[in-house]
Amino acid sequence: MRKTEVSGKLVEGTDPHFKWSHSYSSVFYSKVPYDPTGPMAWFQNYDVEVRDRVKAVSAKEGVPVSVQWSTSGYFYPIQIAQFALSHYSKHFTEIGAEKPRETVYFDGEDKQGSWKIPDSAHVERLYDAVSSNHYVEFNVKAKENADLSLEPSSDLILKLDLYSASNTSIFVKLEDRGKPYYLVYTTALEDVIRVEDNRVIYGMGRESEGKWIRFVRDLGKDLQKGYAPPNLNPSSGARNKSNASHRKKIKFKRTALKPIMLSIRGQGKLDNVTLVSSGHMETFFTAADWFVKVQDRKGGWSVPVQRRMANGALKLEPGWYSAMAQGQALSVLARAYHSSGEQKYADAAGSGLDLFGVPSGSGGVRAEFLGKFAWFEEYPTTPSSFVLNGFMYALMGLYDAAEILPEPAASRASRLYKEGMDSLKAMLPLFDTGSGSVYDLRHMTLAESGVPPNLARWDYHATHINQLLLLGSVDPDPGVLNSVAKRWIGYMSGKRAPHN
Amino acid sequence: MRKTEVSGKLVEGTDPHFKWSHSYSSVFYSKVPYDPTGPMAWFQNYDVEVRDRVKAVSAKEGVPVSVQWSTSGYFYPIQIAQFALSHYSKHFTEIGAEKPRETVYFDGEDKQGSWKIPDSAHVERLYDAVSSNHYVEFNVKAKENADLSLEPSSDLILKLDLYSASNTSIFVKLEDRGKPYYLVYTTALEDVIRVEDNRVIYGMGRESEGKWIRFVRDLGKDLQKGYAPPNLNPSSGARNKSNASHRKKIKFKRTALKPIMLSIRGQGKLDNVTLVSSGHMETFFTAADWFVKVQDRKGGWSVPVQRRMANGALKLEPGWYSAMAQGQALSVLARAYHSSGEQKYADAAGSGLDLFGVPSGSGGVRAEFLGKFAWFEEYPTTPSSFVLNGFMYALMGLYDAAEILPEPAASRASRLYKEGMDSLKAMLPLFDTGSGSVYDLRHMTLAESGVPPNLARWDYHATHINQLLLLGSVDPDPGVLNSVAKRWIGYMSGKRAPHN
Ligand SMILES: [Ca+2]
Ligand SMILES: [Ca+2]
Repeated sequence: MRKTEVSGKLVEGTDPHFKWSHSYSSVFYSKVPYDPTGPMAWFQNYDVEVRDRVKAVSAKEGVPVSVQWSTSGYFYPIQIAQFALSHYSKHFTEIGAEKPRETVYFDGEDKQGSWKIPDSAHVERLYDAVSSNHYVEFNVKAKENADLSLEPSSDLILKLDLYSASNTSIFVKLEDRGKPYYLVYTTALEDVIRVEDNRVIYGMGRESEGKWIRFVRDLGKDLQKGYAPPNLNPSSGARNKSNASHRKKIKFKRTALKPIMLSIRGQGKLDNVTLVSSGHMETFFTAADWFVKVQDRKGGWSVPVQRRMANGALKLEPGWYSAMAQGQALSVLARAYHSSGEQKYADAAGSGLDLFGVPSGSGGVRAEFLGKFAWFEEYPTTPSSFVLNGFMYALMGLYDAAEILPEPAASRASRLYKEGMDSLKAMLPLFDTGSGSVYDLRHMTLAESGVPPNLARWDYHATHINQLLLLGSVDPDPGVLNSVAKRWIGYMSGKRAPHN
Repeated sequence: MRKTEVSGKLVEGTDPHFKWSHSYSSVFYSKVPYDPTGPMAWFQNYDVEVRDRVKAVSAKEGVPVSVQWSTSGYFYPIQIAQFALSHYSKHFTEIGAEKPRETVYFDGEDKQGSWKIPDSAHVERLYDAVSSNHYVEFNVKAKENADLSLEPSSDLILKLDLYSASNTSIFVKLEDRGKPYYLVYTTALEDVIRVEDNRVIYGMGRESEGKWIRFVRDLGKDLQKGYAPPNLNPSSGARNKSNASHRKKIKFKRTALKPIMLSIRGQGKLDNVTLVSSGHMETFFTAADWFVKVQDRKGGWSVPVQRRMANGALKLEPGWYSAMAQGQALSVLARAYHSSGEQKYADAAGSGLDLFGVPSGSGGVRAEFLGKFAWFEEYPTTPSSFVLNGFMYALMGLYDAAEILPEPAASRASRLYKEGMDSLKAMLPLFDTGSGSVYDLRHMTLAESGVPPNLARWDYHATHINQLLLLGSVDPDPGVLNSVAKRWIGYMSGKRAPHN
């Protein structure tokens, strides 16, 4: 996992998320062992959709679009899994057992809402006998709107059910201390996000038409993303010259934002317009469903962009698989199965194990260290790169799968997990520099090219520690994990291994 | 190889050999490839017999006695090999093609010498018809001496042939700017060295009696050793309370020392009393002969003291073999064979290869890294320790043997050398911390005990670099060796590997 946005920001020194970035370098101690049905590690601290490298949360798929290695944007399974897991974790840590505050503005049944409908528009309440449900059907001309008053609310999670028929748009008017902004979700736009003056437009695309969709949006984050465009990686030479980089940056205060009105335009059907204080589980399942939907025949979630490491000495062509992506998807799907009991999640997770058995040289994610130790590669390069943090994330996913999935997937996952843990315990010292850790073993596999050790910067070093503590908390024989973690914690405060 | 005396001295800050010690941290560049018939590496810079850890050069064997891990003193083959190789190397670098200055004071032929013989003594010139040689036979009572004037000379290497019959003693009177000191070499003492006022007494022991011995001593160093007693390792708790530690320390200026007189006492025979400016090759062959003489049935030169590492987690019981000892002995014996053509040296070297094939768990010196790479262990511990510098010294010895020895030993050595070089090239990155090097891989083999990386202090780090440069100079494919050496040189001036 790379987090270049953090260091980039640290260098610039003006990052509004500095405190959050800084928390990457924190060691998270836990008094209880890791529970694969509970929060995922320390991911409740993540705000994935806010990250620079996230273009926006797609209105087509409900999951973030990455611009990390391609400015045109793509679905990066690791980022999506972390998005899912952060929401799953926040569900536990933010609200605990309390139910989120919820206000229904229209459901076609008790709540008919306060509408303002132009004369030219057709808006009609209909009944579906099969589901015993009322909803509204609408046909509103371009440049006109049918408006539903939301009464100023401080709850920013919008949920609704939408059937887009043609040129369907949802407008949400928000006020920031009296100043109006508009969020637009429209099938007339294929782009992920576009900003025009005080309007932030999310493209749902034509493919969203012709079906009912459960629509869940964080209005605060959706608005903010329009005015904090991704700061594209300068080193890639891809700093974009589009309007995004010249756009005015605004930092909104979430508590100052008030949704005022929801408007509809075009043709479609609408039901259950609701504002809630928190919608983490809906967001989580949206992402879990994405993993079920896009999984390919190999059980994989491939990465559609090229990945270059070590100045191009290591290269992965578009379509590569990542053991970290597979592993984090397992963490998502196992939790989705645990929470819902739906077999589709267990099935997808089971298939997700397949690539752990396929060598990296044959399109899988499995490397071997000196022919002896199996290693699940975040980046299955040739030669192998042995990235430590990605491997441990993969192990955490295998652990989750082994603990939660039904048989035979649980046993398969358990075997892979044990195999990986044996490797981890044996090879962990190779990552210890005596004053820090190395990110990978490229200096070994690329020794002939004179590649130096790739020292882990402190946020990765802290991640290594946190992963070791977590894996150690559920290991029957955690000696090596704990003693290395303890030593590595010491390095963060300037301690060094002794010299002779 | 351990050199604790250096750091001990550095801590005290009063080491008269500081400059020499400091040279341990130097990188020695060479414009020409390493030549196994020439100087051994940078060993011309070594003054082994001056080291704290050397009790003295034994008058019984002509080789140094170590007190490194045992205050009672023992023959440490690595130290003896370095003693031999330093003299071999100085022979080339100090005098080049020039012959040392030599003054014969008595040879029984032309040079009868200027003797002063007490009345009670019997001193007679005799002739051995077999060797066509005259010598002197003597019988001098206790407390009397037969004196041979040496005329004040600045040459401090004493050579003579001696047949000790009973209670035989050689006295040498030296003056340091007029102040007299006596060196005594006597079969009446078994101890290595003893100091009484202005007399430094070396024990030749009873075993020296009854045979002709070629006796070569550095009078300057022999005297100095009496007044700069070994500074025993405080951490071992063995700091001795004997007179040695209370003895007055004197730093002699070599050029101020003048041999005045040689005296004989007891019964024996004497010939060829000579002072020379330099006797490196004689000293070298004395040590080479020691290796031939004491080699055991396994072809080994075992170490007769216990060795503990990693706070006792690694332990070798007395009688262990060291790949470094075997390798450095090969460097000695190959050169002795090259210089003399004598088969006994080639035979001993050939037998010295045997232990390289014996696993360290079975009393040999051969370890394996993850069952894949052979490693010749300086300390063949269980689990393995993988000490880098000792391994590279072993490789240098194998190279010397492969280049110099006759068949079949050359081919055997060559195979072992190539096997070891493959391991070195593959494993070298494991010793790279990104800002220095580790001394061994104990943190890997003892990971379960929580053992941290054993960072190499700078003199070892410099040794690693010098060994890599040397091995690289004769390697057909030195890429890894040279690139690592270059990076490690950078670390010495504060450079670090990049972090991500
Ligand atoms: Ca309804
Ligand atoms: Ca003679």
